Amino acid sequence: MSTLAVKGERGVYVRGVDAWPMSSSDEGRLSLVGLGLEADGISLAGRRAARGADRVFLEAYTAQAPQPVASLEAMVAADVEPLDRAGVEDGDVIVDAARGGHAALLVAGDPLSATTHTALRLQAQEAGIAVDVHHAGSVLTAAAGALGLSHYKFGRTTTLVTPQDSYFPQSPYEVVQENRERGLHTLVLLDVREDGSFMSAAEGARLLARLEDEQGEGALPDEREVVAIARAGRGDEAAWRGSLAAIQELDAGEPMHSLVVPGELSPVEEEALAAFATAP
Amino acid sequence: MSTLAVKGERGVYVRGVDAWPMSSSDEGRLSLVGLGLEADGISLAGRRAARGADRVFLEAYTAQAPQPVASLEAMVAADVEPLDRAGVEDGDVIVDAARGGHAALLVAGDPLSATTHTALRLQAQEAGIAVDVHHAGSVLTAAAGALGLSHYKFGRTTTLVTPQDSYFPQSPYEVVQENRERGLHTLVLLDVREDGSFMSAAEGARLLARLEDEQGEGALPDEREVVAIARAGRGDEAAWRGSLAAIQELDAGEPMHSLVVPGELSPVEEEALAAFATAP
Repeated sequence: MSTLAVKGERGVYVRGVDAWPMSSSDEGRLSLVGLGLEADGISLAGRRAARGADRVFLEAYTAQAPQPVASLEAMVAADVEPLDRAGVEDGDVIVDAARGGHAALLVAGDPLSATTHTALRLQAQEAGIAVDVHHAGSVLTAAAGALGLSHYKFGRTTTLVTPQDSYFPQSPYEVVQENRERGLHTLVLLDVREDGSFMSAAEGARLLARLEDEQGEGALPDEREVVAIARAGRGDEAAWRGSLAAIQELDAGEPMHSLVVPGELSPVEEEALAAFATAP
Repeated sequence: MSTLAVKGERGVYVRGVDAWPMSSSDEGRLSLVGLGLEADGISLAGRRAARGADRVFLEAYTAQAPQPVASLEAMVAADVEPLDRAGVEDGDVIVDAARGGHAALLVAGDPLSATTHTALRLQAQEAGIAVDVHHAGSVLTAAAGALGLSHYKFGRTTTLVTPQDSYFPQSPYEVVQENRERGLHTLVLLDVREDGSFMSAAEGARLLARLEDEQGEGALPDEREVVAIARAGRGDEAAWRGSLAAIQELDAGEPMHSLVVPGELSPVEEEALAAFATAP
């Protein structure tokens, strides 16, 4: 019961239900609540924050929510209002709802792993609204753990985007190459498209092969070992390791999928990967 | 209710409470349950798994548990048995408890971010014990989000270890230098010592300065901007940005602390960091 968010004051950032002086703000409150990776992956603290909110929104475009809206509504004992990309990026609907009251935004995975949510947090703080954040499991951490790969051996992460007309970002190739040159693994996240569909591991592998065709620097030849992980952190999680050519033919089932391009594997990592990933 | 863990079968890995056939295993079950970062940072699914266990252990040496043991015991409605480093690394106590029954291991943060837990998971699977994992918030993801820094701009993570006699690993210096050369940020985790004490942000900054003295390649001069974050993901989280010299004098309060050495900041990152971190 200490800090209060003061409009415009630099560095003020109130987090956590217990730190929130429930009765002493006229400005409002916004809770950013992670849903984690599996059904009921929300934290107890996050659920408490959402249950106390006047309006509960769902951000459902950067990742798939781990359970249906009806199930989320039962969990937080409130209506859950899904927002499209424009609704979250614009931010006004959420900030208006938080002003003078309490709004919560449910986010798949960890609530601050997308820049959109950081922008929303800034926007709310600038309006004098206190923001609290409740973290949850994220594929950024879970994928490495699920495969038994060391977090210390991952270089920067990249995302493969679906090519549109002449737009096909080449940066994932550079990231993989840069990491591999240093013996590091690369986590390759896969696009969530505007229409709500998800890039599969096989599609991702085909795009990596296409990048090799276009760049031709040898970072991703057909025989390069690639790991695919599907539904990381869920009960039906599965992982495969095989050549880039083989992963292009993989049926990894329901979304969401990710890829990892391993760098040098330590003996312990080799043992873990052999135990946790199967042939495609 | 699909998969069953089969002793020695490669790649079998059962996760999630719902996927677990409660009545059909003689081999046993081990739940690895993340406690997240704040009190009640455990997920609903994780708490359910722990509540169903015959014995509940706590790993309390790689990070500080976000709430006292008595509070954890109330939460999971069971005795919670803290294990020291040897008890977790050896694994036998946990695996024996899981054999033919159900054991849970509570872990601060995300349950698979330390290699020890991956080794335990391997050991359990080799004994035919099914393992389910319940992820939660981790400083690996939360620190970047809390500071408004892009996850895509972090290079590899490193950990500063307390020097002992002649043992003072220099690798954090190389990691920072390598990342900075690429314009990338570095997350620097700080040692949890054998005696249960935690390296502070100021101590960490002094070690970075000492590494610069020893290595002398200019990666970490006194004027280099460094960010300190304390109690990431908790209600009393706080962050500071200042020169390496200034952070050496910082009192960041209670543990746990981490450091970030920023690379190139985008305008959005600069704005976020200005809002979320104060001068030391």
